[in-house]
Amino acid sequence: MAEVVAGIDIGGTNTVIGIVNRNGDILAESTLPTRCNATFDVFVKNLTGAIEQLLMELGHEHRLLGVGVGSPNGSYNLGAIVDAPNLEWKGILPLCKEITLLTGVPSVVTNDANAAALGELLFGAAKGMKNFVVITLGTGLGSGIVVDGKLVIGHDGFAGEFGHVVAKANGRQCGCGKKGCLETYASATGLRRTAFKMIADSNQPSMLRNVTYDKLTAKMITEAAKTGDPLARAAFEYTGLILGTRLADLVAILNPEAIFFFGGLANAGELLIDPVRRYMEEYMFPVFKGKVKLLLSGLQDKNAAVLGAAALIWEELDKSAR
Amino acid sequence: MAEVVAGIDIGGTNTVIGIVNRNGDILAESTLPTRCNATFDVFVKNLTGAIEQLLMELGHEHRLLGVGVGSPNGSYNLGAIVDAPNLEWKGILPLCKEITLLTGVPSVVTNDANAAALGELLFGAAKGMKNFVVITLGTGLGSGIVVDGKLVIGHDGFAGEFGHVVAKANGRQCGCGKKGCLETYASATGLRRTAFKMIADSNQPSMLRNVTYDKLTAKMITEAAKTGDPLARAAFEYTGLILGTRLADLVAILNPEAIFFFGGLANAGELLIDPVRRYMEEYMFPVFKGKVKLLLSGLQDKNAAVLGAAALIWEELDKSAR
Repeated sequence: MAEVVAGIDIGGTNTVIGIVNRNGDILAESTLPTRCNATFDVFVKNLTGAIEQLLMELGHEHRLLGVGVGSPNGSYNLGAIVDAPNLEWKGILPLCKEITLLTGVPSVVTNDANAAALGELLFGAAKGMKNFVVITLGTGLGSGIVVDGKLVIGHDGFAGEFGHVVAKANGRQCGCGKKGCLETYASATGLRRTAFKMIADSNQPSMLRNVTYDKLTAKMITEAAKTGDPLARAAFEYTGLILGTRLADLVAILNPEAIFFFGGLANAGELLIDPVRRYMEEYMFPVFKGKVKLLLSGLQDKNAAVLGAAALIWEELDKSAR
Repeated sequence: MAEVVAGIDIGGTNTVIGIVNRNGDILAESTLPTRCNATFDVFVKNLTGAIEQLLMELGHEHRLLGVGVGSPNGSYNLGAIVDAPNLEWKGILPLCKEITLLTGVPSVVTNDANAAALGELLFGAAKGMKNFVVITLGTGLGSGIVVDGKLVIGHDGFAGEFGHVVAKANGRQCGCGKKGCLETYASATGLRRTAFKMIADSNQPSMLRNVTYDKLTAKMITEAAKTGDPLARAAFEYTGLILGTRLADLVAILNPEAIFFFGGLANAGELLIDPVRRYMEEYMFPVFKGKVKLLLSGLQDKNAAVLGAAALIWEELDKSAR
């Protein structure tokens, strides 16, 4: 009898369900629309139905031990999704309770970045590390913090909002209502804002001057920078300055062994990491200089969200067993 | 047979030794000069001699279980003091190894702020809390971070250097070699620098205009603010802005239940905490607004450094027993 868990990645549009073993192999996978014009209860029934379907396809020698979920605004402490702006159901959604009622196995939820950190720890490039941080660079900036081998959850279950430290007093408007948050500079969206501001502020020639704001993507800026476009390169340099400085602060607080980058913008690789490293080292407290590794996620090419959610429930099951 | 530990507070000038029981009662205490024109080996011999002396005075029904030390630049991971600028011995001093050789009991060291956090957890106002931060406001700013009931040590044993996050790019020169570190603004020394800058920049009348920089103390500024001196009040307001903003960042990262203030400048009480709270709330990520308690240390009137060092070794003994 092979023991498996279900790893669930709830996104604004689709939800991905994977059946994952102890080694981090995804044995079976399917997708469900999240935006489904149904009540939350119906959505959870569809979700657990999809898990059963996958298990049936795998055959009876697989035993489900638990369900882990990564979700925007997932609260580990409450076992619920709380006021997620991108989902059609509002308020506090008691996801884990309902999953457990329907499946009979334990269920646990956290946000995407926390799940990514656990995925890195169990199945990725952080195996064996005790103290590290995973930074997810997508539409926003998320962070998952591991201290002494365990995910930092915080008093209310919302630790790791590193995307909302102040990068610039009275800076760019952030979706959270504050101004100048780190993610308004260091994210795919932030890079786009930086490039557009530079188009306006400078006279540097750039292939990006022919693109509208709505059409401009971080990928286009990355491609432009790779061909040597000076404005695109300057946008990465500025992103590195902002992110590097704040990472030096994060290191001073937590003294991690490594910082991993994950998500769309991380695909820019050294284009991004090189300036981040230079500025981080420049602003680093002396005792930490040259000591912290900046690395790409070891799950960058895999379905990291599903693996992270699976890692979350494997961790939880191990904790209960101790 | 009563079980006790020794809590040692190594300061630049003097070293305080206390014999402490499980409840945090200091049963006996003595002081030794740290600046003693002797080798480090001789200092450690004097130190363990003083512990024996105290135990003898207490009588034979007391059994020493371990020795905890709080020291500037104390590295928990190495069991050593590393390049402490205020001590006369340089390099890596293998303190714990030597103490254990001479006493036959386990020994452990950490920095002052980490010891303060453990003291707060075991014997102070943080009893029962799982996630909190202690900020020590003296000559500099130190921090001890507790996550999930355990002190955050970090990969190299130097976590908690919150005094060296950047408060202002290219700001005031810090003793660490960087510029604009938080402790150059938010500490007794930082308050003094702020008041002096305000004397130069503004025309506000102030009783502080008659004091030289070398004679000005945080206590004098506190007294002046209490009598309504507008310049002294403005200095506290500015300190609150800088510290409050950075504490909002710390909350976003760690989601603590409470933040405790300890040390000389904390004696200013609400004069300091009121502006810190206002600015922290103003810059707070929405989900944390109104949730984080700002409190004075529960050990403010006790010998917290000795109690913190004692708490450190009690924790260590408990860990080994688990």
